[in-house]
Amino acid sequence: MNKVKIGILGLGNVGTGVWKILNTNKEEIRKRSGYDIEVGKILVRDVNKDRGIDVPKELLTENPEDVLKDDSIKIVVEIMGGVDPAKDYILEAIRNKKHVVTANKMLLATEGDELFTAAENEGVAFYYEASVAGGIPIIHAINESLTANKIEQIIGIINGTTNYILTKMTFDNMTFEAALKEAQEKGFAEADPTSDVEGYDAMYKLAILSSLSFGTRINIEDIYREGITKIKPIDIKYAKDFGYIIKLIAIVKEVSGKLEMRVHPAMIPERHPLASVNDSFNAIFIRGNAVGDMMLYGRGAGDLPTGSAVVSDIISILRGSTDVEAISAVRNNYLNIKPSPMENTESEYYVRISVMDLPGVLGEISTIFGEEGVSILSVMQKGKREEFASVVYFTHTTLEGNIDKAIEKIKASGHVKCIDNIIRIENIQ
Amino acid sequence: MNKVKIGILGLGNVGTGVWKILNTNKEEIRKRSGYDIEVGKILVRDVNKDRGIDVPKELLTENPEDVLKDDSIKIVVEIMGGVDPAKDYILEAIRNKKHVVTANKMLLATEGDELFTAAENEGVAFYYEASVAGGIPIIHAINESLTANKIEQIIGIINGTTNYILTKMTFDNMTFEAALKEAQEKGFAEADPTSDVEGYDAMYKLAILSSLSFGTRINIEDIYREGITKIKPIDIKYAKDFGYIIKLIAIVKEVSGKLEMRVHPAMIPERHPLASVNDSFNAIFIRGNAVGDMMLYGRGAGDLPTGSAVVSDIISILRGSTDVEAISAVRNNYLNIKPSPMENTESEYYVRISVMDLPGVLGEISTIFGEEGVSILSVMQKGKREEFASVVYFTHTTLEGNIDKAIEKIKASGHVKCIDNIIRIENIQ
Repeated sequence: MNKVKIGILGLGNVGTGVWKILNTNKEEIRKRSGYDIEVGKILVRDVNKDRGIDVPKELLTENPEDVLKDDSIKIVVEIMGGVDPAKDYILEAIRNKKHVVTANKMLLATEGDELFTAAENEGVAFYYEASVAGGIPIIHAINESLTANKIEQIIGIINGTTNYILTKMTFDNMTFEAALKEAQEKGFAEADPTSDVEGYDAMYKLAILSSLSFGTRINIEDIYREGITKIKPIDIKYAKDFGYIIKLIAIVKEVSGKLEMRVHPAMIPERHPLASVNDSFNAIFIRGNAVGDMMLYGRGAGDLPTGSAVVSDIISILRGSTDVEAISAVRNNYLNIKPSPMENTESEYYVRISVMDLPGVLGEISTIFGEEGVSILSVMQKGKREEFASVVYFTHTTLEGNIDKAIEKIKASGHVKCIDNIIRIENIQ
Repeated sequence: MNKVKIGILGLGNVGTGVWKILNTNKEEIRKRSGYDIEVGKILVRDVNKDRGIDVPKELLTENPEDVLKDDSIKIVVEIMGGVDPAKDYILEAIRNKKHVVTANKMLLATEGDELFTAAENEGVAFYYEASVAGGIPIIHAINESLTANKIEQIIGIINGTTNYILTKMTFDNMTFEAALKEAQEKGFAEADPTSDVEGYDAMYKLAILSSLSFGTRINIEDIYREGITKIKPIDIKYAKDFGYIIKLIAIVKEVSGKLEMRVHPAMIPERHPLASVNDSFNAIFIRGNAVGDMMLYGRGAGDLPTGSAVVSDIISILRGSTDVEAISAVRNNYLNIKPSPMENTESEYYVRISVMDLPGVLGEISTIFGEEGVSILSVMQKGKREEFASVVYFTHTTLEGNIDKAIEKIKASGHVKCIDNIIRIENIQ
């Protein structure tokens, strides 16, 4: 049996998963890869920390050179996260002719190009299945399985934390704050939840998916991003009343030759397969011009699911099944697709406004919508005898730019306390 | 640009899809494969038949040798279906050192071993993504993406015809007969629907999935098979009342070192992702010991979806990304897993019985269930003033063998008109 030595950078959640899988599934991996995989060294911050797993202490090191400069190590797995120093470590591994497997979405989304080019120049494999949607083999699917297709659209639920929170808000009537607290207690959300709840995490993943699917370079600044912190129980309730479920979605699609990329909460039809993706599960809905509608569903995070993607990448490298040339060819023929400005996005909208409870106000607002070309599907006013009333509009399909202009005018009208929320409605067929 | 010539055996539904995709997505395919794919010859039964697509007549031939013996053809696509003569054609193509792509599930399920061995001996690729679940890249997922996992269980909705019929019965209150007629009118069912509605089609696909996932040879005789023809609207209604949806499912799982393989209608929980797979869509739910629960959803049939799988296979061959050795290694290390006898299957059961409406009959039947170790969860008797009453039992988890014995005794009791239906309940978590 052939033997191969790998090095691991980082021994957190995913690192632990990789270690467990390499041990538990040794037989399967041996059979499928033709190799006995041996872990040579693992870079950690503190070799004395108790990690609750049975990693022999002599494998741990606090010196990156022990991984990056060891000639016996053929594959380096980077699962430490963050841009710095992960980027430098990966570049050094590549220079030392090591294949690289990474789960680092932020690094890929912001500095991917430099890493891909370096790997190409040195003729080593650079794999990153684990960077998007954990265990779901979406990178593989786009890169290898859907190659006969022109991909038209991707809609993903690719952040488990926000999906967990929204599921709790939808089915257990929790507030955002209570659901976030529960998610934190259960380990589904970080102490500082910003990256998840403000949509940054989903944005990085969308950048990777968009680049891959549309064969073009992506600037993350071109991705519209909005989190879920403004979603209130009342919005969830209105959505339900109209047959929708609110999800944080990441969308990319080509519209009139430009690329529309956005991450934001949206109401989606409750009968759509994406609507029943609950808890911390992820799913990616793809429309290809040959395959039609497809969805991949699974665990988007967690030690073993993400470890599954990492170890499968290692096996792919060992099998030599990467066609490095073919993947480079796509990169070297990157299309120059311009991003579509957000004001050109077409959508239906849900707008919830607190207005002064005076005669004529409703008419005034409706007139403003009309002036800006926004056609109203439904309007509801909650009849409370207070100074301010809550009015909810569901619009027909319109341009984001029209909504923006109408909202500015409504704010300026003097009869509005505040625009409580604006949520896009994606009527996915 | 490199050029490669392919030959196609069959120009039906899938063949038309392949032709369309090769033309429509020429640019994408060129970029991803590094090749211009040219169709050399297409074997058809009648070159004069009008197929409604723009295939130049000089490409058509009625002589298989024009495809199989043409040295300029490097890849043969077999999409004629059936075992005979498809098997001989494929073997001849392999002997002539041509790579083969097939969509032929029946052939693979029954004669796959001989074909794999032949391809291995000649060192050519033998791909079959299109044979299971059309456009869904399930073969690729198991073979290449989930390699880090020990697969524990697969539950699939892998027959579009029966799923269409059951969807109509569930949501439009149709009878089986009416739904079948509509499916036939819409082209979702054949004039002779036996292969679909009796579960043969799903059985072939399950054999392929089982062999691949568990690394073992499968005898299709070892797969329990039952179709959907006995499902009545009343069964659908009872299922709904208890929170279930009836689907034709194909299951494989390892239980106590043996392989349980079965195709039959089952009640599944309405909140499970598989329950919302409607119309002619397919989905495959996989549980891996690392990745956890995963589902792939998409179009299981149709010219373009199935063509998508065929053309993606061609591209994989052109990229040289098949690790023929690794796949052979799995085959050459096939495990000897015995099939699990059906009487050892554990399930909950729904049993609908027409009994004589006499005092004591209900007690008698319940006693028999108890004697055979079948514990009852719910029982309902429809109170009609007729000679026979309909009684419905929902059982707790029990062995199929116990149910069988109880049913024999109940039949022999003399107070039963008939056992109207027995449907397994899969309480998938």
